[in-house]
Amino acid sequence: MANVAAKREISSAEGEELSREAKRAKGDDKNGEEGGNEPEWENILSTFTTTSVLSDSAREKIMFLHGKMAGDEAVVVLEKTPVREDSLAELFRDSKLRLDMRNDIYSSYRLQAPPHLNEIKTTVVCPATEKHVKKYRRQESFLVEETGDDYRSITLPYIQGQSLSLQWVYNILEKKAEAERVVYDDPDPEVGFVLLPDLKWDQKQVDDLYLIAIARQKDIKSLRDLSSEHLPLLHNIFQKGKAAILERYNLSASKLRVYLHYQPSYYHLHVHFTKLGHDAPGCGVERAHLLSDVIQNLQTDPQYYRTRTLWFPLRADDGLLGRFREAGRL
Amino acid sequence: MANVAAKREISSAEGEELSREAKRAKGDDKNGEEGGNEPEWENILSTFTTTSVLSDSAREKIMFLHGKMAGDEAVVVLEKTPVREDSLAELFRDSKLRLDMRNDIYSSYRLQAPPHLNEIKTTVVCPATEKHVKKYRRQESFLVEETGDDYRSITLPYIQGQSLSLQWVYNILEKKAEAERVVYDDPDPEVGFVLLPDLKWDQKQVDDLYLIAIARQKDIKSLRDLSSEHLPLLHNIFQKGKAAILERYNLSASKLRVYLHYQPSYYHLHVHFTKLGHDAPGCGVERAHLLSDVIQNLQTDPQYYRTRTLWFPLRADDGLLGRFREAGRL
Repeated sequence: MANVAAKREISSAEGEELSREAKRAKGDDKNGEEGGNEPEWENILSTFTTTSVLSDSAREKIMFLHGKMAGDEAVVVLEKTPVREDSLAELFRDSKLRLDMRNDIYSSYRLQAPPHLNEIKTTVVCPATEKHVKKYRRQESFLVEETGDDYRSITLPYIQGQSLSLQWVYNILEKKAEAERVVYDDPDPEVGFVLLPDLKWDQKQVDDLYLIAIARQKDIKSLRDLSSEHLPLLHNIFQKGKAAILERYNLSASKLRVYLHYQPSYYHLHVHFTKLGHDAPGCGVERAHLLSDVIQNLQTDPQYYRTRTLWFPLRADDGLLGRFREAGRL
Repeated sequence: MANVAAKREISSAEGEELSREAKRAKGDDKNGEEGGNEPEWENILSTFTTTSVLSDSAREKIMFLHGKMAGDEAVVVLEKTPVREDSLAELFRDSKLRLDMRNDIYSSYRLQAPPHLNEIKTTVVCPATEKHVKKYRRQESFLVEETGDDYRSITLPYIQGQSLSLQWVYNILEKKAEAERVVYDDPDPEVGFVLLPDLKWDQKQVDDLYLIAIARQKDIKSLRDLSSEHLPLLHNIFQKGKAAILERYNLSASKLRVYLHYQPSYYHLHVHFTKLGHDAPGCGVERAHLLSDVIQNLQTDPQYYRTRTLWFPLRADDGLLGRFREAGRL
């Protein structure tokens, strides 16, 4: 769990992490989806038997399954795809509908569409380890109160003891990986950063825009390490990040929600840029901190985040939650 | 708009209102779906032409359309259905999959399922009025920056000019309405409050618990009016609210997200108690302020919320947004 946690944000949007790992492994194959050689139709799932449903969301139309495929442990994720505007004409022309209810001007139907217009995004991890199975099993969260002293006596030792690898972060900063995905790059070692789409965003629509700005400075683990000396960095990320998004996606700053997480998913300073109106996972007040608020707080009190009590959620299986329990802080 | 704004929180759960209206109109017809006489297959949508997409959500896989059906104005809602556990065996046996990407233990596919296992919930309102169209058109939100001076020169005059009726709030406080719904009542005129379920919560499960604590003091419009003199009130709401929820619903404080909104939906101080893990509408960082943070801020700086710059979203049709535009603050 530790090494996985050092990677990208563990999204509460179920399924995205799995797709992320799969896409990251894709490497240079940008055109896997379309091209001269369409893969053959197959059905690897015909050998899959379900052991249990790890979690599911009726709201998001997604399900995580644990099972066996041809004798191996496997995790399968099934997620319905968004309705696409460009498929509507064909959908309306070629579907068949069965009436559920009609009353006055209202009627509801079950629509059966041509399968190619209504695909299900399917991800398979096989063979899957117990770690995979645990990761996708739904976890309860608990709100934790962390004083400045708690941070130094409980959280910091825990983080330091985790041996979390940040090599993938450095690979991005050094253009050894994902260079083609970078939207903006400021090379300044003090105030510079790299801005790129988060793996949760497939970039097919602006509706769920989600980018991450990764600071070049390597010694800022989280909000707790920020002081007023970092204001130039934070201002730079904020201004240049917004400008780059306006230029590339034609989305103005008033349409953006820009924030940090505490706790973050990985302990190298990064800032989230998401579209206002889209309920991105992790934009809840219990974990997110508006960058504009962070800047204002540090302008008022240079040591704000070193002394302040912070609250944040931790999953039931998070080792840090155990530490807070042992310390009698829960 | 004024009288609407003075009422309860407007829920952002897309589509549910339309389904509710349709189901309400269904009346006693419980067995519309299955029965001896299955409705015939039809395709009323073959005559539908899209005028515009009113709104859509990639996260929830839903789309609202405005268009024309056989010459009449119509609203059509298309929503993918949740993945169903009881259909999995057949889905795995009879689907075909096309590989998107494979790397090591990860692979992702586009799955085409038998249509009867992957239906799209379709609702039609026809003929639709302009009121229907407006209701389902997504309102864009814009993030607004309000300094302490902006509050006094723009927002406060706007609020005062709105003549918003708070009689329904006073009815609750005076037990003239909803008395049977009250979970806790502290009658103290200074630090007292009434705690009751929010209308968004049907109380059928704890998973989406949502209660509101309404302060008895009548002259606190919002966060902006809070100073350190209100700390006893805020502490009282926090402690007694959490205790009452633990006693009634067996939910501990570590499972709660307790916050204020800015801007609030109505200008009489109230605090939201929601279950951690449930993405209640309005728990996003751009609008919510943890009560524990508010208390800590006022302990540090008695005038914190009178001087501080605050950010919040406003819908496109909000009169206050127009005032900020006119003042050149957007």
